[in-house]
Amino acid sequence: MARMSKPSCLITTPSSLGLHFPNPTEKTGAIPAAAGSTMSAPPELPSMSNDVLLIFFFTEPNDEWISRVKAKHPGLEIRWVNILNPDHTFKKPESLGDEVWKGVTLLCPFIQPPPAELLSTVRFVQLPSAGVDRWPGHPTYENEKVVFCSGNGAHAPQIAEWVIASWLSHQHHFTRYAEQMKTGQWEPPTRSTVQDSTAARMGVLGYGAIGRQCARVAHAMGMEVYAYTRSEKATPEKRLDDSYCVPGTGDPDGLVPSKWFHGASKDAINNFLAQDLDIVVLSLPLTKETKGLLSHEQFEILSKKKTFVCNIARGGHLDQTALIQALESGKIRGAALDVTDPEPLPSDHALWKAPNLLITPHVSWQTQSLMPRILDILELNLDRLGAGQPLINVVNRQLHY
Amino acid sequence: MARMSKPSCLITTPSSLGLHFPNPTEKTGAIPAAAGSTMSAPPELPSMSNDVLLIFFFTEPNDEWISRVKAKHPGLEIRWVNILNPDHTFKKPESLGDEVWKGVTLLCPFIQPPPAELLSTVRFVQLPSAGVDRWPGHPTYENEKVVFCSGNGAHAPQIAEWVIASWLSHQHHFTRYAEQMKTGQWEPPTRSTVQDSTAARMGVLGYGAIGRQCARVAHAMGMEVYAYTRSEKATPEKRLDDSYCVPGTGDPDGLVPSKWFHGASKDAINNFLAQDLDIVVLSLPLTKETKGLLSHEQFEILSKKKTFVCNIARGGHLDQTALIQALESGKIRGAALDVTDPEPLPSDHALWKAPNLLITPHVSWQTQSLMPRILDILELNLDRLGAGQPLINVVNRQLHY
Ligand SMILES: NC(=O)c1ccc[n+]([C@@H]2O[C@H](COP(=O)([O-])OP(=O)(O)OC[C@H]3O[C@@H](n4cnc5c(N)ncnc54)[C@H](OP(=O)(O)O)[C@@H]3O)[C@@H](O)[C@H]2O)c1
Ligand SMILES: NC(=O)c1ccc[n+]([C@@H]2O[C@H](COP(=O)([O-])OP(=O)(O)OC[C@H]3O[C@@H](n4cnc5c(N)ncnc54)[C@H](OP(=O)(O)O)[C@@H]3O)[C@@H](O)[C@H]2O)c1
Repeated sequence: MARMSKPSCLITTPSSLGLHFPNPTEKTGAIPAAAGSTMSAPPELPSMSNDVLLIFFFTEPNDEWISRVKAKHPGLEIRWVNILNPDHTFKKPESLGDEVWKGVTLLCPFIQPPPAELLSTVRFVQLPSAGVDRWPGHPTYENEKVVFCSGNGAHAPQIAEWVIASWLSHQHHFTRYAEQMKTGQWEPPTRSTVQDSTAARMGVLGYGAIGRQCARVAHAMGMEVYAYTRSEKATPEKRLDDSYCVPGTGDPDGLVPSKWFHGASKDAINNFLAQDLDIVVLSLPLTKETKGLLSHEQFEILSKKKTFVCNIARGGHLDQTALIQALESGKIRGAALDVTDPEPLPSDHALWKAPNLLITPHVSWQTQSLMPRILDILELNLDRLGAGQPLINVVNRQLHY
Repeated sequence: MARMSKPSCLITTPSSLGLHFPNPTEKTGAIPAAAGSTMSAPPELPSMSNDVLLIFFFTEPNDEWISRVKAKHPGLEIRWVNILNPDHTFKKPESLGDEVWKGVTLLCPFIQPPPAELLSTVRFVQLPSAGVDRWPGHPTYENEKVVFCSGNGAHAPQIAEWVIASWLSHQHHFTRYAEQMKTGQWEPPTRSTVQDSTAARMGVLGYGAIGRQCARVAHAMGMEVYAYTRSEKATPEKRLDDSYCVPGTGDPDGLVPSKWFHGASKDAINNFLAQDLDIVVLSLPLTKETKGLLSHEQFEILSKKKTFVCNIARGGHLDQTALIQALESGKIRGAALDVTDPEPLPSDHALWKAPNLLITPHVSWQTQSLMPRILDILELNLDRLGAGQPLINVVNRQLHY
């Protein structure tokens, strides 16, 4: 399945459908030559008169969205299940009942991949997540006739906020001041030194939807940004990102970075980490290539500038034992993790006690605007499915992002 | 003393002196008509062959800066005293000794106004602070023959970072997660709701150097910005800010706000606060007009949107009892104060225990780049004094900012 080109910037409101679509630009290198495929349309998909769309998410049905989509696609049946239990666990997909699953052809499932036997009639999956790392090996995902699209771009604004907040809270010692509040301690203002971000450099490891919005905000604070991607971005065209993008955010044209790096080799990564970064943001997909990317050797490289390490991608990107050592020995100034391995992180895990570390329980994607954005992407893809047009945010099944 | 127009944007490095100076633009309304003064050059000041410059700050002398300035201004004597005691208190100006004070004509004093008798020969004061609220009533300040310039603009990047960090930490519940880390608690990711800033509106009460940089970063996060100033900014020219500005930061052209408000009346302020603001930033000078600006009535107005209140200006801007009540009753979602009244805040003060509040001990100005920026402003003003040119950041002695 080819990774399709996607419109550069889509509005997140119902009016999105009226928006302009820039000329498709090829996502160069997104398909390895070996896969023998270049830009191609998705498999022919009939219109939706016999389709059943199942959405399961942790919110109640959005009736306005449902009526609007039904009005445009008469014959399309829409089922919406809120899978959130009162104790904040989720109903398992297989517990939803036969009547929910019967005849489902279009699926928008929250997080857990449902068992393949429930998906025998599915031809299109709109993931709300940006990462697809839970899917490789799943028979439906391995079936190239089923189209998978990601929620890519729907998470960028809130996750960039999380990244910037973790960086600034660290730099401005907020945790220490919160502690001092408990005893009413007014520390002399000159006791601690602070360096603002105007002279700082951010390295963005994975310059996709999330990384670009981190860069936009960092740049507004006066920071220099270095970008890292898998494929080379030698020309302005190649620097474009055509994922879904909330207007007024991100860097869809790739104008922010002052320097670009690329590659999937360890040497290439090590060279990037050696660029005197004040902060490195991990915002790349978890794939075979990127598992355990940061270990002892890399923290040693980062020790030169005591780089702050911010991981909002996946826990598997870094060796947690190496991270704890880097923090305890002061090799790096601090770190922030929204993701760990495993999740939930057991309450007796050593990571909880490491110094200068913020851990949050995989929540950086959270925003009340998430579901409207996912629905926006889904609606757009339904319209394009119906019209036989190329979809947006199509997942590359060789690269797994 | 007229508030002089100042170049729009100056580089913070030694090379600043080679920078271009845009045409001066009149700071409309900076001088009340009653004061009978419009744009005018500062009093004629002779060159500096007989001048003595005294800098006291909490850092060691910057020898490179001293040699450079001396090379340009032969005959100028420069004295630099580090007033920081090992216990992080400051030496009092009057304890510095006669030999330090003798013949001083140009002064750059850290924070405390020295007794007037020490300043009898002083003709120029370069304040490192942006606010001059410690000076009104001081005989040297009341003497219009002495020129006062502020450190306006040198604090904007780091204070904007503090503002954004306090806002985002609150919105993303960082304090709660830091607490949960202590017991290794992994809260279900759907337990709390978050709203990212893309749909949020920031009100900037005082759209000067600091407010403009808050706006720049907020805008990069997708926020809408409403600006409030004392004087009306009806035209693009009037929206310009000619304070010292770190390149790549701020909004010197006043392009960010989608709506402008102005005035010094209570009604005007109340109307601004009623604009469904998600966050209001207090970044205006403390003057007679702005003392106690936010009290019960204003928190009542803010309760509609549960506006987050961020005060980095002066403690006197708000009624702390009213703030505590607003926080305890949940009228506002939270607040962050870098300034209180009094300072230091006594350890048994009720403010320390108010919910959803961050207090830091007047540190938001802190950055290792502060002294270089102050020296940059001072150097520029020395050069202009020597050349008889208009100075930058001249304090308006009717308005006291
Ligand atoms: N914490 C959370 O709640 C949360 C939420 C959403 C997403 N995420 C994680 O964040 C990741 C990034 O999301 P996104 O939406 O920003 O993704 P994206 O738009 O697909 O961007 C991915 C970026 O990573 C680069 N990349 C891919 N493989 C790489 C490799 N081997 N080495 C270096 N760079 C590589 C890509 O390079 P090219 O430009 O060359 O393709 C691209 O620049 C997701 O995969 C997901 O795992 C976490
Ligand atoms: N926490 C800290 O460490 C720290 C550090 C630096 C500064 N500060 C405080 O922050 C304040 C602002 O600093 P800045 O450098 O941004 O100042 P600035 O550049 O002089 O800007 C002041 C802004 O406030 C507006 N203003 C003045 N009087 C007003 C009134 N009565 N009502 C409404 N708006 C009014 C001005 O309006 P016009 O545009 O019409 O003149 C201007 O937009 C300083 O005065 C200082 O007290 C605190």
